[in-house]
Amino acid sequence: MISTVVPATLNKTKDKLVLIDQTELPNRELFIELDQPAEIFEAIKKLRVRGAPAIGIAAAFGLYVCIRQSPAKRYADFKSDFIKVRDYLATSRPTAVNLFWALERMTTCLERNAELPLDKIKAALLAESELILAEDQAMGMAIGRHGLTLLKPNMGLLTHCNAGGIATSGYGTALAPMYVGHEQHYNFKVYADETRPLLQGSRLTAYELDKAGIDVTVICDNMVSQVMQEGKIDAVLVGCDRVAANGDAANKIGTSGVAILAKEYGIPFYVLGPTSTIDMVATSGADIEIELRDPDEIGNGFGRRTAPEGVKAYNPAFDVTKAEYITAFITEKGVIKAPNKAAIAKLFE
Amino acid sequence: MISTVVPATLNKTKDKLVLIDQTELPNRELFIELDQPAEIFEAIKKLRVRGAPAIGIAAAFGLYVCIRQSPAKRYADFKSDFIKVRDYLATSRPTAVNLFWALERMTTCLERNAELPLDKIKAALLAESELILAEDQAMGMAIGRHGLTLLKPNMGLLTHCNAGGIATSGYGTALAPMYVGHEQHYNFKVYADETRPLLQGSRLTAYELDKAGIDVTVICDNMVSQVMQEGKIDAVLVGCDRVAANGDAANKIGTSGVAILAKEYGIPFYVLGPTSTIDMVATSGADIEIELRDPDEIGNGFGRRTAPEGVKAYNPAFDVTKAEYITAFITEKGVIKAPNKAAIAKLFE
Repeated sequence: MISTVVPATLNKTKDKLVLIDQTELPNRELFIELDQPAEIFEAIKKLRVRGAPAIGIAAAFGLYVCIRQSPAKRYADFKSDFIKVRDYLATSRPTAVNLFWALERMTTCLERNAELPLDKIKAALLAESELILAEDQAMGMAIGRHGLTLLKPNMGLLTHCNAGGIATSGYGTALAPMYVGHEQHYNFKVYADETRPLLQGSRLTAYELDKAGIDVTVICDNMVSQVMQEGKIDAVLVGCDRVAANGDAANKIGTSGVAILAKEYGIPFYVLGPTSTIDMVATSGADIEIELRDPDEIGNGFGRRTAPEGVKAYNPAFDVTKAEYITAFITEKGVIKAPNKAAIAKLFE
Repeated sequence: MISTVVPATLNKTKDKLVLIDQTELPNRELFIELDQPAEIFEAIKKLRVRGAPAIGIAAAFGLYVCIRQSPAKRYADFKSDFIKVRDYLATSRPTAVNLFWALERMTTCLERNAELPLDKIKAALLAESELILAEDQAMGMAIGRHGLTLLKPNMGLLTHCNAGGIATSGYGTALAPMYVGHEQHYNFKVYADETRPLLQGSRLTAYELDKAGIDVTVICDNMVSQVMQEGKIDAVLVGCDRVAANGDAANKIGTSGVAILAKEYGIPFYVLGPTSTIDMVATSGADIEIELRDPDEIGNGFGRRTAPEGVKAYNPAFDVTKAEYITAFITEKGVIKAPNKAAIAKLFE
C-alpha cells in the first residue's frame, strides 16, 4: 500500500489496482481491487475513481495490471493487446485530458522499450505508472506551495467539487494550498459547495478536509452568491479537468457560475492543476467536448425519486470557465496571473 | 373542495383547512386536514404548505378554522383567543411577508366587525379568508397576462424554486405567464432548476408544469451558467417572498446567483409577485431578515447522509436580489421595468 497524504486514495499491490470507491463515501471506506479492463473502465465511468489526476494514474496502473496478464510471446502481439486495452480505457470518459495523457505516456514507454524482452517491458510499464504517481504527489506539493503565496491566514475559502487528495494521489490541486497552509497553522475557514448531482463537494471534499482537521462548512451550490454577499469568502480555489491553450478551463459543472459570481463580488478566482491538464490542441474552451451524463443522476440520485417519473433532465458534467474570469492559474511550475495564450505557451518552452 | 388551476393545492371544507402535503410530492398526492394551531404552525414551518401566497391563504383559513372553535361568549374573550392563535401562527416562518399580511387582514376584519354577534364575526372571518383566496386566484391570472407581454412563442424559460399553482391557489406568480402562454400555444421550453436543499424545482415545479402538459426539463442549480451559455434560456422568471421599497427582492436561496448570471449573459430577469409581497417598511434588502434553516436539510436531506456526520453546514433559506439585476417586476397591476423606489411607491398611490 502506498500511503498518500489525506486520505489513502489510490494504491497498488503487485498485481491489482486498489482504489477507494468514491461513490461509497462518506458512508463507508470501501477498497476495491481491479485487474480486468471492464472493471477499470466501469470504475472510471461510474466515478468510483474520479478527479483528473487520479483518473490518469488509475488508467496507467489499470493498463499495466491488465496488460501484464497478456499471454503474448512476441512484441507485435503484446503491442496489439496493449492497444486494445488502451483504446478501450480511453473511451471511459471524454473530458479529462489526464486520461489520454497518461495512456499516451504508457504508449511512449512501450515503444521506447520495444527492443527489450517482454518481462522487461512489463517492468518498464510498472515503473512508468509509479513515476506518474510520484510526479503527481510532487506536483500536488508544488501546487500547494505556489497557491499558498496567494493566500493569507484566517481567510475564508470556497471550493467546488473535489480536487483534493482523493482526486489525486496526495495533496490534490485546489485543496493543496489548504493542506500546506494547514501545516503552517493558516486557520482557513473553507466552504465546500455540495456539487450536484453527485455531491463530490459534500461527500468527498468535506470528508477529506474534516479528516485533516481543517474547518469546513458545506453549502448547497445555490448558496454561493449569498455566502459571497455576506463577506465569508476571500478567495475561490477550484481544480480543472482540461485547460485550453488560451487559458479557458473545463471543470466540474457549476464552476463557470461560481467564477462569474466571484467576479461580480470582486473575489479572486484561482484555477489549480498540473500542466498535464493543459491541452494545447484545444485553442479555446469551444474545442472541449462536454460530457453529457445520465439524466437519472439528477432525478433519481439518492435512492429515491427527486423529480417526477418521466420528466426530462439535462445533465452536462462540465462547463468551461473563460480565461477572463480566472484571476490566476496555478500549476506545479508556478503562478500565472491573468492566464492567456502567451503565458500558457511559455510553460512549454 | 375549491378547484384551483394546476393542481388543486389549497382547499377548505366548512371546518378544516385541507392542504396537499408538498413535502410528499412528487411521490404521492397526500391531502392533510388541519384544524389545530399546532398542526397549522407545523405545516407552515415544515413546508407542507409553502410559497408566499399559499402561506398567506393557509394562515388566513388556518386562523379561521382554529378560532371558530373558540368557546368564548364575549367579544373581549374571543379577541384574546384570536390574538393568541394569530401571534403563534405569525412565528411559523420569518421571511414571507404574506403570512403577516394575511393575518393582519384577518385582524382588521375582526375589528371592523366587533359590534356583531360572535357567530356573525366568525362568518365574516370565513368570508375574509375566501376573499383572500379569490383575490389570489385573480392576481395569478393578472400576473400571467402582464408577464406574457414580455415573452414570445417558443422561448426557453428558466425558473427557480416553485412559484406556481402549488405555491398559490391558481396560476401562481412566476409560472403564471407559462400557463397563460400555454393556453395560447406559446410552446415554451421551460428549465426548472432543482433548488436545493428541498428541491422545490424538481419536486414541485416539474410536477405541476408536466401535469399541465408544458415542456419542462430539470437541471441542477449549478447548471444554470451552462444552459445560459448554450443559448437555451431567453428569459428568467422567478417569484418573490418579500420585496423592499427600493425593489430589492428576497426569494428562495439561489435567486440572486441566477440574477447575476442572467445579467452576465444578457438575459432578462423577471420577478413576479403580488403587491401584497411588497414590504414598504423595508427600505432595502438589508432590512429583510433571512431565515436560517436546519443544517440537516443539507447533510441528511434524502433519507441518507450526503455529507459526513458531524461536518458543519450553513443553510440560509433566502437571498436578496438587488433591484439593479431585475429587468422588470410584474405584479397584478402591471409591469414595472427597472424597478426602483419611485416606481414601487407609485403602486400604492
